[in-house]
Formats: sequence, structure tokens, C-alpha cells
Amino acid sequence: MRTAPAVATERRDLERVALFSDAVFAIAITLLVIDLRVPLLGDDVSNRELTDAVLALRPQLFAYALSVTVIGMYWHAHWRRFRYLERVDGRLIALNLTLLGLIALIPFPTALIGEYGDLPIAVVIYALSVAAPGLLGPLTWLYARRGGLAARDLPARELRLATLRGLVVPVVTLGSLLLLPFASTRVVELAWCLVIPLQFLIGRSSRKG
Amino acid sequence: MRTAPAVATERRDLERVALFSDAVFAIAITLLVIDLRVPLLGDDVSNRELTDAVLALRPQLFAYALSVTVIGMYWHAHWRRFRYLERVDGRLIALNLTLLGLIALIPFPTALIGEYGDLPIAVVIYALSVAAPGLLGPLTWLYARRGGLAARDLPARELRLATLRGLVVPVVTLGSLLLLPFASTRVVELAWCLVIPLQFLIGRSSRKG
Amino acid sequence: MRTAPAVATERRDLERVALFSDAVFAIAITLLVIDLRVPLLGDDVSNRELTDAVLALRPQLFAYALSVTVIGMYWHAHWRRFRYLERVDGRLIALNLTLLGLIALIPFPTALIGEYGDLPIAVVIYALSVAAPGLLGPLTWLYARRGGLAARDLPARELRLATLRGLVVPVVTLGSLLLLPFASTRVVELAWCLVIPLQFLIGRSSRKG
Amino acid sequence: MRTAPAVATERRDLERVALFSDAVFAIAITLLVIDLRVPLLGDDVSNRELTDAVLALRPQLFAYALSVTVIGMYWHAHWRRFRYLERVDGRLIALNLTLLGLIALIPFPTALIGEYGDLPIAVVIYALSVAAPGLLGPLTWLYARRGGLAARDLPARELRLATLRGLVVPVVTLGSLLLLPFASTRVVELAWCLVIPLQFLIGRSSRKG
Repeated sequence: MRTAPAVATERRDLERVALFSDAVFAIAITLLVIDLRVPLLGDDVSNRELTDAVLALRPQLFAYALSVTVIGMYWHAHWRRFRYLERVDGRLIALNLTLLGLIALIPFPTALIGEYGDLPIAVVIYALSVAAPGLLGPLTWLYARRGGLAARDLPARELRLATLRGLVVPVVTLGSLLLLPFASTRVVELAWCLVIPLQFLIGRSSRKG
Repeated sequence: MRTAPAVATERRDLERVALFSDAVFAIAITLLVIDLRVPLLGDDVSNRELTDAVLALRPQLFAYALSVTVIGMYWHAHWRRFRYLERVDGRLIALNLTLLGLIALIPFPTALIGEYGDLPIAVVIYALSVAAPGLLGPLTWLYARRGGLAARDLPARELRLATLRGLVVPVVTLGSLLLLPFASTRVVELAWCLVIPLQFLIGRSSRKG
Repeated sequence: MRTAPAVATERRDLERVALFSDAVFAIAITLLVIDLRVPLLGDDVSNRELTDAVLALRPQLFAYALSVTVIGMYWHAHWRRFRYLERVDGRLIALNLTLLGLIALIPFPTALIGEYGDLPIAVVIYALSVAAPGLLGPLTWLYARRGGLAARDLPARELRLATLRGLVVPVVTLGSLLLLPFASTRVVELAWCLVIPLQFLIGRSSRKG
Repeated sequence: MRTAPAVATERRDLERVALFSDAVFAIAITLLVIDLRVPLLGDDVSNRELTDAVLALRPQLFAYALSVTVIGMYWHAHWRRFRYLERVDGRLIALNLTLLGLIALIPFPTALIGEYGDLPIAVVIYALSVAAPGLLGPLTWLYARRGGLAARDLPARELRLATLRGLVVPVVTLGSLLLLPFASTRVVELAWCLVIPLQFLIGRSSRKG
């Protein structure tokens, strides 16, 4: 049995891990804007030319919005998992750091599809990169439960829901790659937008269920 | 009725959302400096030439100061709203993430008016970009109140004040666009500075009222 | 008299302001590295050439170390002031945001002296930029005391010490500008290093006194 | 003897130092991605060419993964040390700021070995840069214990473990430099990967012991 001060210490340890993770998620989201470069057009550019140049940034804006959504969903899933954690150990921290390393990488494939979104290799790299944290997250959770780090009173529905939510991004992005031989890269990228309605549907069914 | 441990958990959940949001606001403010590029002038530049080159950065410095002010105001409004929240749900988090995605975008239009502030399209994009989070904020708040997420004891004056404050930026920036057919882009940009005295007037009237 | 829950709320409000400020300080420190650019030397560069190119970055490394020190000192001063705050109001938040906007600006003059440290205008801009938050800090504190936002039990010695500490950076950097007509920019920049021993001396005298 | 409110204040002071440090660690990790630049290949690039260009980024990806691991380990060591701190003083804050300044510098040598990993000078700079925080960390801890800032109830095993963990990175990276006269830079860089199994071995032995 653990004493009250020990529980308070564990709580603080846990909070520091959560806040460190939050900072990585927040910075990954905010760094995405760095690849939205203002076009270099010289001093005598007209209003028409600048308008065209900004409109030409649509693929980059799409990539920005998509990655903000994906990182936001992963943050939300992380936040949900941490609600049910009671303490952390060295391995959980190692798993969490690996997850954060994958999240911090997302600005790179985002810039790649923003720039070369019409090439299949860019689409494949993006799909793999954003799917990876979605597969690692549930693994972390599994480890936490087996290792007795999670609260005992976790409702089964909450667990099912968290797993479903966490898998939305990998299922959609990896599944979309099956379209690649048959459809244009544009269609594959549009398919990724399915993560938003799916997320909402799971949220709604959880409130009903 | 909610038990004491449940309230403590809700409090912690809420704090993590607040701190994640704070991180995004803080990084968005700090990334603004990245577009204040040191001029590249070669090795034999004179003191006079560097002085001129730095003075030529005035539009970028103006854009920096303006966006720091705007993001600061939105942070302040966010901070005020969160004081009266008691818990969060999935939809509030989705609304909050959308708000943060819009905040994280602000460095892009800031760089745009810093570089092309004399072109109407840059002025229009900046106004729309910084107005958007100002419209989403009150929406979040409305949802929180309808969904029973806000504290019951929110004073009516505080609510009116928060709404007024939140609307200062969108009203000023969108309103300024009405000047665009008649006045130079410079005048429109100077009009944006009105957000500062208006913010102070609202603060003062709130202390009197 | 304030009730216990009101005090708890004020405490939380205060903490969120502190953590938001911490994030801005932390990001400003970390962004300084962005201007330490890896030299572009082509594919066939020799070990000797890369060594020379890295050694040529000494001014940038000096600027990095100096600005990390200055921002660190300002963070320390901010941390000390917040220990004695009991609550915040709208004006204190506005003063604090202004301070943070000045801190977030420091990477720009840092890059400037890294690149053009032999030109007087770069030296002047750096000195003014890093002195500004040092003058605003004590002002914030003065406002907090006059507005009844600070704890009543602040020891007079602590107050004197905080003021002295806060003024080390502005006194040294602004004072160094008096040398500019007589000495090389290099000497002025070396004079800035005095902030470190002065900070230690004040710390030591405070322990004795 | 310290009173309960004094202990609560010390706890808050300590937490703010920890969270500020967390933010610096988190940003240093996330900024590493900035040097993973999307290759500029023009508009008519083929899928094959982009694939080759991305594969050519392998050294940068290796450097990214290595530095995420190193910074992650240092964060973990910092987190462990702070669990046993009871309060901070000015000198500990100065030591901690120096540590953070060294951590924030890591993106620079990371970019250096990503770009010039086949040159000995890049390997030496990286090894020295990432070893430095590993030597400063235990020093901080030593100071904390001598200064009576650490909790009295720190178990001897925990102390030994923390010291061992903290020294893994400096021992491996500095030790690897002994290989430099005999082996290619590639071998030296691969030797750095030993930090991961060593970290795990120490963790495992600690659970047994």
C-alpha cells in the first residue's frame, strides 16, 4: 500500500511528464507554420501577382490544416490516456519519448506533401509518418495497464473508445495508401480528411452508448 | 452531484488544456521574430548602410509589435474564459484546437504584411486571419455555457466584458477593411492600432461600471 | 477580506500567467540557436576548411552565450518578482505582455551582433534591446506594489536586491555605450560580460547582508 | 524548522524552475526537425528523383534520432534529480540555466553531423557538445546535496543510479573519440547508439539490485 505523500509525489512526477509532452505537441503544431513561406516576388510585384502567389500556397495550407488536426488528435488521445495513469516508470518514459520524437518529426512530411503532394513517394512518407505515433500510443497504454501503472477504475467503454480514437489516424492514412495504385495522389490526400468526421462519430457514439 | 475526487480530476484535466493552449500562444508570439531577418549585406558593409537596412525593417517591426499585441490579447481573453470553466468535453477541446490552429497561423500573415504591406491583398489576408480567432473565442464560450461546462456563478458584467474584449480585434480589423477602397493600405494598418486604446477603455469602464 | 476559494482561484490565475511567461522565456532562449547556421561549404569540403568555418562562427557563439545569459537573468528576476505577487489585474498582464514581447525580440539583435558585431549601430541596437526589458521589469513591480497586488510581507532587503539585480543588465549595456566613441566595438561587447560577475556579487552580498 | 506555508512556497518555486526547464528541453527536441529540410528540386521532379533525395537525408535523420534520444535522456535525468530537490537557490538556478543553455545548443552540432558527418571535426564537436550537459548535470546535483537543497531521504541506490545514468552519454560520446584515429567517422557515430542499450541495462540492474 502506498502512503499519501508517496501518492502526491507520483502525481507530481506524472504531471511533469504530461506538461513536457504538452510542450512538445504544442511546439510541433506551431512549427508547422514555418513552412508556409511568404513568396519572394521582388519589389515591383502587383496585387494580382501576390494574390496568385498566395493562392498557389493552397497545398501548403491544406497540409498545415491536416497536420494541425492530426497532432491535435494525438494530443487529445495522449491527454485522455494520462487521465488514467497513476504513475510512470523508466520504460513508460522511454515509450513516451519515442512517441514525442515521432510527433516532433511531423513538420517534415508536412512540408514534403505541401511541396511535392502530387508525387506518390511524398504521400507514402506522410501516411507512414503520421500513422506511426497512432500505433505507438495504444502500445504505451497497453504497457501501462500490464505494468500496473494505470488506475484500476478505468471503465471498459472508455478504454474501447480511447483505442478506437487512437487508431482513426493510422487506419485512415495507411488505408488510403491502398488507393494509391488506382487514384491520383489528390484523391488519397482528400481521403485523409475522413479523420475529422470519424473522430466526431466515435465521440457521438460514446455519448450515446 | 459530483464527488470531490471527480472535481479534482476535472480541475487537472482543465489545467492541462490551459497549459497546452498557453504553450501554443507563447510559441506563436515567439516565432514572430523569425521573420525579422538580419539583412544580408556582404562583408564590407558600412555603418551607414547597415543603419539604412535596419531602418528599412520598420514595416516588419510594426507587424511584429501588432501581432504580439493581438496574440497577447487573445491569450488574455482565453485566460479569462478558462477561469470560469469547470470542465471540458471532446467538443470544447475540438473548438479549442481549432482556435489554437488559427493562432499558430498568425506568423504567416504577419510576415505577409511585413513584406507586402502596401498591397491590398496582404492587408485583407491579415485582417481575416487575425479576426478569425476573435470570432471563434466567443463561440467556444457560448458552447461551454450551453453545455453546462462553465461555472454557474459567472457575473453578468464579467460575461459582457469578456465578449466585448474578445470582439475588439475582429471589429477593428474587419471594420478597417471598409476603408480599403478609400484610403491607402498604410492608413488601414494604422487603424489596427486602435485595438490598444479600445482594450484599455473597456478595461477602465469595467472597473467603473 | 478574501475567502479561501477566491484565494485559490487567484493563485491559479497567477500560475497560468507565470507559466505562459516561462514558455516565452524558454522559447526565446531556444530560438537563439537558429542563427547559429551550419556553414554551407559544398560537398568536397576538407576537414581543415570546416574547422576554419566553425571557428569563424565565434562571434555568433559569443552572441548566443551572452543572450542566453541575459534572458536567463531576466527569467530569474521575473521568477523572483512572481514569488511575491498575490494576484494579477488587466494592467499587470498588459505590462507583462509588453515585457514578453521585448524578450521574444532578443533573437533579432543577437543575430545582428553575431553578423555585424564590428559596426557601432549593431552594438547600439543590441544594448538598447536588451536594456529595455530590464527597465520594464522594475516598473511592473512598482505597479504591482502600488496596486496592492504584491504580498504585504515582502522583506525590504529582498526588494532592494531584486531591484539591483534587475538593473544589472540595463546599467552595464547602456553604460557600455559611453565607451563607444573611445573604444572598439569589441571592447564594448566584452564589457557586457560584466553582467555575470556583477550578478554573482549581488547574490553574495545578499547572503551576507 | 520551516513552516507549512514556507514549504508550499518552496514547492511552487521549484515547480516553476522544473517547468521552465521542461519547456527548454521540449523546444530543443522539436527544433531539431528544422534542419531536416525538404529538398529543393524544381517543379518537374520525378517520383524517382524525390525518392533519391529523401533517401539522401539518411544522415540527417540519423542525427535527428540520436539527438532526440540524447536530449530525452537528459530530460529524464533532470526529472529524476528534481524529484529529490526540496528548494532552489540562486546558484542552483545559475547552474540550471547553464545546463539549459547547453541543451538549447544541441540543434547546432546535430545539423553539423547531419551535413558533414564524414569529417572528424564535426564528430568531435558533436561529441563535446552533447557530453557537456552530462557532466554539468551531476555537478548540479552535487551542489544541491552539499547546499542542503535535496531531500534527506534520498536512497543511496537511487543516487548511484542517477549518477550512472547521467554519465552514459558523456562516457559513450567522449570515449568514442578514442576510436577516431583508427576508425571511420561512421563507426564512431554508430558507437554513439550504445547509449540506448546502456541506458536500458542500467534501468534493468536498478530494478534487480
